[in-house]
Amino acid sequence: MTANRVKVEIITIGDEILIGQIVDTNSAWMAVELNKSGFELAQITSVHDDAAHIVESLELALKRADIVLFTGGIGPTNDDITKQTLTGFFNTKLVFDESVIRNIEQLFANRPGFTINELTYAQAMVPENCTVIQNVVGTAPLTWFEKDAKVIVSMPGVPYEMKNAMSREIIPRLQDYFKTPSLLHKTMLVYGYGESALALKIADWENALPKEISLAYLPNYGVVKLRLSGNSEDILSLEFSMNQQIDLLSQILGNAIIAYEDIPVETLIGNLLKCNGLTVSTAESCTGGNIAHRFTSIPGSSDFFKGSVVAYSNEIKTSVLQVASEDLDNFGAVSQAVVEQMAIGVRRLLKSDVSVATSGIAGPTGGTADKPVGTVWIAVSSEDKIISKEFRFGALREQNIQRATQAALLLLKEII
Amino acid sequence: MTANRVKVEIITIGDEILIGQIVDTNSAWMAVELNKSGFELAQITSVHDDAAHIVESLELALKRADIVLFTGGIGPTNDDITKQTLTGFFNTKLVFDESVIRNIEQLFANRPGFTINELTYAQAMVPENCTVIQNVVGTAPLTWFEKDAKVIVSMPGVPYEMKNAMSREIIPRLQDYFKTPSLLHKTMLVYGYGESALALKIADWENALPKEISLAYLPNYGVVKLRLSGNSEDILSLEFSMNQQIDLLSQILGNAIIAYEDIPVETLIGNLLKCNGLTVSTAESCTGGNIAHRFTSIPGSSDFFKGSVVAYSNEIKTSVLQVASEDLDNFGAVSQAVVEQMAIGVRRLLKSDVSVATSGIAGPTGGTADKPVGTVWIAVSSEDKIISKEFRFGALREQNIQRATQAALLLLKEII
Repeated sequence: MTANRVKVEIITIGDEILIGQIVDTNSAWMAVELNKSGFELAQITSVHDDAAHIVESLELALKRADIVLFTGGIGPTNDDITKQTLTGFFNTKLVFDESVIRNIEQLFANRPGFTINELTYAQAMVPENCTVIQNVVGTAPLTWFEKDAKVIVSMPGVPYEMKNAMSREIIPRLQDYFKTPSLLHKTMLVYGYGESALALKIADWENALPKEISLAYLPNYGVVKLRLSGNSEDILSLEFSMNQQIDLLSQILGNAIIAYEDIPVETLIGNLLKCNGLTVSTAESCTGGNIAHRFTSIPGSSDFFKGSVVAYSNEIKTSVLQVASEDLDNFGAVSQAVVEQMAIGVRRLLKSDVSVATSGIAGPTGGTADKPVGTVWIAVSSEDKIISKEFRFGALREQNIQRATQAALLLLKEII
Repeated sequence: MTANRVKVEIITIGDEILIGQIVDTNSAWMAVELNKSGFELAQITSVHDDAAHIVESLELALKRADIVLFTGGIGPTNDDITKQTLTGFFNTKLVFDESVIRNIEQLFANRPGFTINELTYAQAMVPENCTVIQNVVGTAPLTWFEKDAKVIVSMPGVPYEMKNAMSREIIPRLQDYFKTPSLLHKTMLVYGYGESALALKIADWENALPKEISLAYLPNYGVVKLRLSGNSEDILSLEFSMNQQIDLLSQILGNAIIAYEDIPVETLIGNLLKCNGLTVSTAESCTGGNIAHRFTSIPGSSDFFKGSVVAYSNEIKTSVLQVASEDLDNFGAVSQAVVEQMAIGVRRLLKSDVSVATSGIAGPTGGTADKPVGTVWIAVSSEDKIISKEFRFGALREQNIQRATQAALLLLKEII
C-alpha cells in the first residue's frame, strides 16, 4: 500500500505539547489535507524546543520521507528556536527580508493598537537559503527549504495560521514540486454493533477483500467507522473495485450503515432534517448545551436548528419547559416521565418540528444504587410521536456528556 | 533542565491518527500526568500499524529514553498488530493467560448482551515475557516489558481505558521502578496583552530569571499562559525561588494576571461565582450553547450554573427572551440593544444573579460591510449593572465560536 506515494513527516515543536498544555489538533487536520492531496503522512514526531533534538528528528525524518513539515516554535519570544536551529542545520545565516515587514504592516493596518515593535521586527530575519512564504494572517513568515530533492517547510503552530498557509500555499506548492499519485479512502458509519461483533459479522467479506484494498475499524462513541483505503496508478478502477465491495457490505449490514461518507453525526442528522424540511430544538440537562454546540458548529445550521434550553435546575424544567413538578418529585429528574415532558416542552416553546431532550447523571457525584453515575434518559419527540430510551454509560463525566450527546443525535434519526 | 530526569517517550500506533480521523488527545493527557509524577516526556511519535516502522521507532526511542509507552493497535481486529510486533521484537511467543478471560467475564457481567466471542477470547493471548496488567474497563490487557533496566508498556488507545490504566497501574509502577526526581511547573493566566506586547513588558524580569527557571509563553484565545518550569534535587528551594519570581511578576502585571494556576477560564469564573454565592445563566446566539457546555463540563457546576437559552432564531429572542422586535428590526440581531436585552431576558427567565449573552456572525456567510463575519456583541448583566462590548474576531466559524465563548467568560469577570 505504501509504494509510489510521496511520504511526509510532521515535526511539531514546543514544550507545550510535551507537558500537555495543548492538544495537537494541527497534525490531525494536516493529515486529512495531505491524504486528500495524495501524500502519505508516515510519522508525526513531537519534540521540545531543544536544538539538538530538533536536528536529530529532522535528520531521521529526511531518511524516511521526502517532505518534512515543521509546526511551531517560530513565535517572537525567546523560547522559540526553530528558525535559529534550521539556520544552523543548513549552515547559513539570518538575513533581513523586507517583504515580511510589508506583510506585517498590512496585517496591522486593520488592527487598531497593533504596532510593529522590536520583536515583530525580528520576524523579518530569515535563513538566507530559504524561500519566504508570507503568513497573511500572522506575523511569523513561513520558510521553505529544498535539499537533495526533498522539501522542508517551517510554519507557525497557531492553528488558523497553519491551516491558512497549508491550504493556500504549502499543499499547492508541494503538488507542483512532487508528482502526487492518488490515494483513495472511503468511510462508512455503522451503528448498532460493537467493534468485535461487527468484525465477526463481516469476517467473510473482509477476508475476501482484494489485496489492494485495506480495512480499518474506528470506534467512536457508539458508532464504528469502517474505512477502506487503497492507492493505485489507475484510480478509476480502484474506485470501481471499492464501490463493488461497499455494495457487498451494504447487503450484509443494511440499515446499520447510517452514512456512506466520513461525516460527523450532527452533520448526518442536520442533512436529514434539511432534506425533510424539519426543524429541531433541544432540551438539555446532563449534556449541558453540547448537542446545541454540535449542531451550531455546522455552517448554515440556522436552516434547521431553532435553539435550545439548557435546563440544569429542576426549577427551569418546570417553569420554562412545563415539566409537571409531581413527576419530578415522584420519579426524579432522571426519568422517562421527565425527559419526555422536556422534549415536548422545548418543542412547543421553540416551535420546532422535532426535539430531543436529555437528563442524566454525568458524575462524578449524584449517583444512587438505582441510578448510578452514567444513567441517562433521552427522549425525541415530534407532533405525533415520542420515543424515549434509557442508557447506562460509564463513570467519567466528560465521557458521559459526549456519549449522551452522540446517543441523542442518533436517537433523532428514529423520529425524522 | 533535562538532567537527572527519567525520560519517557510515547509511541501512538494507528492509521487513524496519521490520516487524521482522530485527534491524539491521549498524549496530552499522558504528558500532564507524567510531568506531575516527575517524569520528562521527551518525544511523542505517531506511526502507522506497520510492524517495521513500529520496531524502528521502538529501537530509536530506547536509545533516548528509559520508558516507552505504546498506545493503540491492540484491539481485537486484524488491522491491530502491536501485540504481534512486540512478540516479534522480543523474539518470544504468544501464550494463553487465563486471568485476562476472568477479567473480561467480570467486565461483561454488568453488560447484558455482551458475550465472549472468539475475538475477545484472542485478547487472552499475550507475549510470554510480559507482565500482564488487567484492563478493568476494557477487553485488551496491558502488557509490561523490562529490557536492560528500561520499561516498555503497551496499552489501549481508547482514551478512558488508557487513562484508567495509567492512573491506577502504570504511573505507580513506574514510580516504584525508577527514582523520580521532582519537576515543578507554575502557570499564570494573563489577560489583556498579546504575546509580543507581554514579552516586551516583562523583558527585564525575564532576563533576570535565575538559570534554573525557564519561561514559556502559551497564547490561547485572548489569554496568554506564562509557564515557569524547573527541576531540582532541592524542590523546596526551587519552589521558594519560583514563588519569589512570581511575586516580582505580579508587581509588574497586577490585575492582568487573572489566575495563578493552570485552570480553564470556565473553572476560574465558576470559582469566582461560587465564592461570591452567585448563579449564572447564558443566552447564546452565535456561541450556540458552547458557553453552557464549557460550564457544565465542570463537575459540580450545578452549584452556580442555572441554565441557558440557545436562541438561534429571532423568533426565540423575542418570544422566550423578551427582546423587543422593534430593536431586532432597527438594529439587527447582532447589536448592543439586542444582546443587552438577551442578557436581561435570560437572567429573569432562569432567575440567576448574573448572566451573559452573545450575538454575532460566526460565518462563513451572513457578513455585511458594516458587520463583517467575526463581529460579535457580548453583554453581561446583574440586577443593577449591564456591560456590553463589541468584538471583531476573524473569518473562521469554529475559531469565532471559541473566541466569543472565551471573551464571554472573561467579560463575566467584570460583573462578578
